[in-house]
Amino acid sequence: MAQHTLTDQTSADLKETGRIEAFSDGVFAIAITLLVLDLRLPGDTTDFSEQALRDALGNLWPTYLAFGISFAFIGIMWINHHRLFTQIARADNSLLIYNLLLLGGVTLVPFPTALVADHLGHPGATVAALIYSGLFVGIAVFFNLLWRHASAGNRLLNRNADPESVARITRQYMFGPILYLAAFALAFVSVELSLLLSLLLALFFALPPPPLKMLAPSQQ
Amino acid sequence: MAQHTLTDQTSADLKETGRIEAFSDGVFAIAITLLVLDLRLPGDTTDFSEQALRDALGNLWPTYLAFGISFAFIGIMWINHHRLFTQIARADNSLLIYNLLLLGGVTLVPFPTALVADHLGHPGATVAALIYSGLFVGIAVFFNLLWRHASAGNRLLNRNADPESVARITRQYMFGPILYLAAFALAFVSVELSLLLSLLLALFFALPPPPLKMLAPSQQ
Amino acid sequence: MAQHTLTDQTSADLKETGRIEAFSDGVFAIAITLLVLDLRLPGDTTDFSEQALRDALGNLWPTYLAFGISFAFIGIMWINHHRLFTQIARADNSLLIYNLLLLGGVTLVPFPTALVADHLGHPGATVAALIYSGLFVGIAVFFNLLWRHASAGNRLLNRNADPESVARITRQYMFGPILYLAAFALAFVSVELSLLLSLLLALFFALPPPPLKMLAPSQQ
Amino acid sequence: MAQHTLTDQTSADLKETGRIEAFSDGVFAIAITLLVLDLRLPGDTTDFSEQALRDALGNLWPTYLAFGISFAFIGIMWINHHRLFTQIARADNSLLIYNLLLLGGVTLVPFPTALVADHLGHPGATVAALIYSGLFVGIAVFFNLLWRHASAGNRLLNRNADPESVARITRQYMFGPILYLAAFALAFVSVELSLLLSLLLALFFALPPPPLKMLAPSQQ
Repeated sequence: MAQHTLTDQTSADLKETGRIEAFSDGVFAIAITLLVLDLRLPGDTTDFSEQALRDALGNLWPTYLAFGISFAFIGIMWINHHRLFTQIARADNSLLIYNLLLLGGVTLVPFPTALVADHLGHPGATVAALIYSGLFVGIAVFFNLLWRHASAGNRLLNRNADPESVARITRQYMFGPILYLAAFALAFVSVELSLLLSLLLALFFALPPPPLKMLAPSQQ
Repeated sequence: MAQHTLTDQTSADLKETGRIEAFSDGVFAIAITLLVLDLRLPGDTTDFSEQALRDALGNLWPTYLAFGISFAFIGIMWINHHRLFTQIARADNSLLIYNLLLLGGVTLVPFPTALVADHLGHPGATVAALIYSGLFVGIAVFFNLLWRHASAGNRLLNRNADPESVARITRQYMFGPILYLAAFALAFVSVELSLLLSLLLALFFALPPPPLKMLAPSQQ
Repeated sequence: MAQHTLTDQTSADLKETGRIEAFSDGVFAIAITLLVLDLRLPGDTTDFSEQALRDALGNLWPTYLAFGISFAFIGIMWINHHRLFTQIARADNSLLIYNLLLLGGVTLVPFPTALVADHLGHPGATVAALIYSGLFVGIAVFFNLLWRHASAGNRLLNRNADPESVARITRQYMFGPILYLAAFALAFVSVELSLLLSLLLALFFALPPPPLKMLAPSQQ
Repeated sequence: MAQHTLTDQTSADLKETGRIEAFSDGVFAIAITLLVLDLRLPGDTTDFSEQALRDALGNLWPTYLAFGISFAFIGIMWINHHRLFTQIARADNSLLIYNLLLLGGVTLVPFPTALVADHLGHPGATVAALIYSGLFVGIAVFFNLLWRHASAGNRLLNRNADPESVARITRQYMFGPILYLAAFALAFVSVELSLLLSLLLALFFALPPPPLKMLAPSQQ
């Protein structure tokens, strides 16, 4: 009997958060793959010489840069989403809504990415960079809302979630909105510096400090 | 021996509805992410000044509105699909067909979304809004057909499905086609009010009334 | 000990075919959702009157028809893929290759769909319909190759696969290439009849004859 | 108690690498399906005669070739990713990063595919082929980095991973970057030969030599 309950529990747990993760994985995977759709030469090309191709590829550099930042951002967001759901075992309605808002932000990323790619080096670049980093601020805020809701009083966490890891995630994530707000403010001064900071922030959230052991629970 | 049977059962159950859910998750995730493809500036831009960008972004407001409504609609439909399949444990041929019809409706959403975005504020808006809310009516009808088929006599439900939750879902879903039909009819009077009602309906189906306990089965 | 082995086995089995199914689900889901990208009004519209919208929507009827057939075809192919993998429990290299060829055919569907939609009612329609139904023939052939490889001598089937169900699938699938070849040949006579036959074939493969019990293994 | 631990372990293992695989499956599935978006007739067609369609389809042959190579490449990469993760059971931060870099390369494939399709037979073809095969070199390098990191000292491998299979994968993968580098160098001599070599390499990595038994662990 105890066995029966245990196996059922495991299967129910797997199913419950499993599908939220599967849907989220789908959205992250599609958003990150759609970025490539903006990596294309102007459609009206009639000159297929080597020089024309070299020039066209060279002119795409703002697109490469924007692609790189957005790819790093969405990829790292996925890694963080994965980290959170290593700790989260149950779902409630609010979690579904917060997750949907977060995913809504992620699906939007290709839009300001194209704006930045089109306007870098032009006067419109500041507005484009403000929208771009503003979206990052919003996504970081939704990440915090989701995590706060799930972790407050261990509401939706795994029964064997490590309190220290949970506290560490809370601490690290608190910086997200503030740091992306700095990238937002920096766009008024220099678009290039703002983009650089966004790229560095993606790397910062990718490389957790050594004491963080939450990624390999089965090794503990 | 009993153990053997139990584990096999769990694994078979997981597999059976698991793949329907995975395919559905994929379709929902792609349809919701494709919405962003219509969020783009007119392709023939040659003026990259700040004022031109501000104007172009400002002119996109019907697109933002349509994006928001469609994102909320597909997201909430996913949440409801997830809710249904928390109760559904088995599949038969009719369930697959109903699910396919439902998904067909979901994949179509980006089309009338673009129609509404293009025609809002123009004389063609009424026709666009009728197609938009008409599609919502259709999807709500397919949702009911799927659920009625699965829940009638507990045909395809979990063995431990809660009768009260099942009855509550049936009651709530019955309102779907009627309410979206109201949004359809309202489009003849005012396109704006019809869109507003569609948005409110998405929120209504996102926030179930307090007595609804079906979302967190493992906590019961 | 026996318990240990059993659980490991279950987990390994789930993982082995699970990922092939997940990748296939993704391809099916994306291919079916991409069909909507061709459902759009001509991009150079400047007339947003009601009459212009009605006319434009009316002129899209070949696209609706092609969308409907392709949606039914891919959806039913997914249902059949799902049916096959209810019986298939193991993978080998040939299965992966056959599955990849099958998926290659599925990803191609949007291309001849657009050809048919653009040319219906024009002299080019015959060529378009030949490519369209020719692709269906190819996909049906790959389906047979995959199934023959998996089922020959129960090579990759579930240990508890029902011999009668297996024989019935083999029999039903044998008709696929022949029937789609008939749709191909019919395109020389009448494009409309060829399309109608393709649509009927999708419905035929969706609705298996009553004696077929393979869809709900857990009810047996 | 022992039972409890065992089942938890299995479930944790499934979840840990499961989600990385799900996200990767999504990216592979989308990248491979997006390839079809470049298979389309010039958008400004106004001549719908049979001859015009035949001509337009005939002129697309570089696109068919590029589609074929890229489809084979991404498909085979997926098969190899699947093979690796049959052996990998745990994740750490570096694995996530290497996997993200690998997926970044995969999402980029449609871009040089379109470049090659547009420039084949034109002077720009050499540059296009260099970018195309250069991307393949990069992906092969990331594949090696990922595998070396996971397999070094059995760091992240399954407890029951077969040492011989692991050694064989390491040996086979070592050739990847070298062979794709040969395709890169060959592009300076002949674009056609370079593309042919890329296609042969995809087939080489699809058809492992007979002694390789790693694909069907449950049959051992």
